[in-house]
Amino acid sequence: MRVIGVDPGLTRCGLGVVEGALGMPLRMIAVGVVRTPTSDDPAIRLFTLQIEIDEWMARYAPDAVAVERVLAKANIKGIMGTAQASAVPMLAAARLGLPVAMHTPTEVKAAVTGNGRADKAQVTAMVTRILRLDTPPKPADAADALALAICQVWRGTAQDRLQEAVVAQLAHRQTKLNTGRR
Amino acid sequence: MRVIGVDPGLTRCGLGVVEGALGMPLRMIAVGVVRTPTSDDPAIRLFTLQIEIDEWMARYAPDAVAVERVLAKANIKGIMGTAQASAVPMLAAARLGLPVAMHTPTEVKAAVTGNGRADKAQVTAMVTRILRLDTPPKPADAADALALAICQVWRGTAQDRLQEAVVAQLAHRQTKLNTGRR
Repeated sequence: MRVIGVDPGLTRCGLGVVEGALGMPLRMIAVGVVRTPTSDDPAIRLFTLQIEIDEWMARYAPDAVAVERVLAKANIKGIMGTAQASAVPMLAAARLGLPVAMHTPTEVKAAVTGNGRADKAQVTAMVTRILRLDTPPKPADAADALALAICQVWRGTAQDRLQEAVVAQLAHRQTKLNTGRR
Repeated sequence: MRVIGVDPGLTRCGLGVVEGALGMPLRMIAVGVVRTPTSDDPAIRLFTLQIEIDEWMARYAPDAVAVERVLAKANIKGIMGTAQASAVPMLAAARLGLPVAMHTPTEVKAAVTGNGRADKAQVTAMVTRILRLDTPPKPADAADALALAICQVWRGTAQDRLQEAVVAQLAHRQTKLNTGRR
């Protein structure tokens, strides 16, 4: 399973591609940051981001997209640009028919460090260890994008297994009911 | 000058196309509302909106796009979807090389009613009068989209005239300076 993680933003948008499965070593395929100049018109910034993200989608052909869920913070002006930026990978995924998962920063931190309140250094350290990288990914947005992708490989697989277990259990119950009726 | 106004939203997105110039009667070309089901995945809802907006762009070929500037309100969850939806007309405009203007609700209300705190009924009444419509546009999102387009025709033209005046003044100063140097 190959997942692209997107830490949305107009000034810096982190992108990270991870391949693997739950219980297997994960591999980093690509990591990067798209920057758009604050002097540009917001529509042009969004379009620049769209061109880059579409190119990543074409080049790395992910099976799923994980996007950080934008939550309300103190900086309202910045948050609107971030919310608009988050629409770009969602649109790309929908156009390509790929599933999109939205994870909160807390969910991502908990998935990779075991602590939903972990700081940036801890997240970067765990991403470096999980992907067995020689050097920590920089900047933090790049590490966050990889963490999102890792989170999705693990949670997505876990959700699939849970669903399989539920289906198996339902099948078992169905069998028992059928047996009972006989 | 032909402007498409977009009142962004995922549940209801108002679209209105207006043609005209400052000091001339304005004409409504089209009005409508795009709805996407709340049961759909947010990425699918954004993509549905994109398909519709791209179709409006192709059909009505506007010269400019006016989008309501999303401001922070009490309903934070809804506001994120609205901010994401506002990215869709911005991306369409950037791709087509069209200028995008963002207007706050207060600016739009002030432009069409003279009162930045006007209620929805007053905005609808003025839009109906300005565009000389037989019946008021419904729902409110459709009227708001037309109001945005009217605001842009008037403000855009005024801004162009202001720029022309500034350019003319600079040219005049330049002439004087040249004269002084002789």
